[in-house]
Amino acid sequence: MSKEFDFIKQYFVNPQTVNRPEVALGSGDDCAILDVPEGYQLAISTDTLIAGTHFPENTSAFDMGYKLMAVNLSDLAAMGAKPLAVSVAATMPVDVNDIFVKDLASGFFELANQYDVQLIGGDLTAGHLSLTANIYGLLPNGQAIKRSGAKVGDLVVVSGDLGDAGAALHHPLHVLLQKLNRPQPQIELGLNLLGKASAAIDISDGLTQDLCHILSMSEVGAVIDLEALPISKHLADTVDQKMAWSFALYGGDDYQLAFTISADEFEKLDQGNLTVIGEVIAMQGLFRKTDNGLKKLPTKGFQHF
Amino acid sequence: MSKEFDFIKQYFVNPQTVNRPEVALGSGDDCAILDVPEGYQLAISTDTLIAGTHFPENTSAFDMGYKLMAVNLSDLAAMGAKPLAVSVAATMPVDVNDIFVKDLASGFFELANQYDVQLIGGDLTAGHLSLTANIYGLLPNGQAIKRSGAKVGDLVVVSGDLGDAGAALHHPLHVLLQKLNRPQPQIELGLNLLGKASAAIDISDGLTQDLCHILSMSEVGAVIDLEALPISKHLADTVDQKMAWSFALYGGDDYQLAFTISADEFEKLDQGNLTVIGEVIAMQGLFRKTDNGLKKLPTKGFQHF
Repeated sequence: MSKEFDFIKQYFVNPQTVNRPEVALGSGDDCAILDVPEGYQLAISTDTLIAGTHFPENTSAFDMGYKLMAVNLSDLAAMGAKPLAVSVAATMPVDVNDIFVKDLASGFFELANQYDVQLIGGDLTAGHLSLTANIYGLLPNGQAIKRSGAKVGDLVVVSGDLGDAGAALHHPLHVLLQKLNRPQPQIELGLNLLGKASAAIDISDGLTQDLCHILSMSEVGAVIDLEALPISKHLADTVDQKMAWSFALYGGDDYQLAFTISADEFEKLDQGNLTVIGEVIAMQGLFRKTDNGLKKLPTKGFQHF
Repeated sequence: MSKEFDFIKQYFVNPQTVNRPEVALGSGDDCAILDVPEGYQLAISTDTLIAGTHFPENTSAFDMGYKLMAVNLSDLAAMGAKPLAVSVAATMPVDVNDIFVKDLASGFFELANQYDVQLIGGDLTAGHLSLTANIYGLLPNGQAIKRSGAKVGDLVVVSGDLGDAGAALHHPLHVLLQKLNRPQPQIELGLNLLGKASAAIDISDGLTQDLCHILSMSEVGAVIDLEALPISKHLADTVDQKMAWSFALYGGDDYQLAFTISADEFEKLDQGNLTVIGEVIAMQGLFRKTDNGLKKLPTKGFQHF
């Protein structure tokens, strides 16, 4: 891409410079170089966003940049890692205009600066719009909150409200679209869960599907109470209860955390933003409570309860 | 991408498992986790390949996978880093067929296994074909060969032959296409240059453009002798000398190393694959020797000498 160097110089330079001491060498050479402090491990995650697939075609460039950073930070949050650095592989049409690139970078740096994340390089190529970020975070040795640690008897907990982002695709109200376009990665919560939660995941594909990753990797099951699902007032005002549950269970794009934790450890947390929605059980699978006992939740979409 | 998990399970599992002790957690969780051994830094590089831009549309899936790994390894080579792990963000059309994915993975693992590189995760999305890899390597603390260390009086050296890959786009002979599609990353050479070379870069955009990055970052110039450029017998048999030089200087895709090194340190190297093509000088810019003194080399393409 002939414009590559111009674009990088003009727009991919963070207006508010972040200089992390762990970054021994940033952009501009064949590789970036990181120092990982003694006693820490490096957490790495990759997420790609494609226009039309991961956000509606008419999403603003600012929101695309913001969301690219948000979804990657969310993966660090899910392990309890502290954000450090990011690299970006951006593919953009040859005729992309300067304002688009500038806005994209603004949205991206908005969150990068909030979490003191240094941009350490990447690649800019010409083609159909596609944005990939690789994010790097620090974890105290052996402390990562994996998906595989859920224990029978643990509580199942989620942060925030669920379903707003998924609902926004069908009911494009401003307040719901904000949840879809500007998800807030749960970095602080992830850090607070270190050494306390037994397993965690970020909710990107919908609570049901993501919680099932924890359950299968932990070789346990869970029962959840649909009545307990945290539904925002806006969503409750927009759709009926069963539809709200459906968005919460299958909508995706919430970027809240779902985690399992013992009742004792849960007591020690600031519970302001958290909702207990169920419990880990020995019988494998994901179930909901009904008046007639446990009923298996379908893993993908659902019509009836 | 609904097929994502199937594809990953079926094809992106390395048939010859690589288990690096530095990889504390590989694929399958929100993040991968790396241990960076004491005394080492982590080198990170990102490269994207787009069909039609970075290789001809009719390139085989195997060669695409191979080249994705090769160009990323080449960036580690240019810093003297030892390969460790890789993550991949692959975007493929929804209707991509299984054989394509299988062949792509085969080409990718061919080189990954050769260099004992562990696949630690990534992202698979639906869209126009685009392949991004993030590669991770280890460097002894403070030893990285940067672009900025060239000193006046150093020799300018390149590995291998130059121009074959660039020529292949115009003269699609099998032997030239092999150079374009299956570049051999110069990992061993990079490791041998640690502590010896003053600056290095891999030749991806053509010798002239890449060497200029070293020169500008080192705030020096260089004079090179076109007669000394290493041209393969196949290229010499295919085009006249000036055209061969043109491909060597501007063709790109060679993935050989260009480096600067003192004459003393150069003496200590195995010089089998290496050619001295010039010398670092104080006057900034890239020049060629002529009977009438130094003449500046155009940075992009050229018609006449």
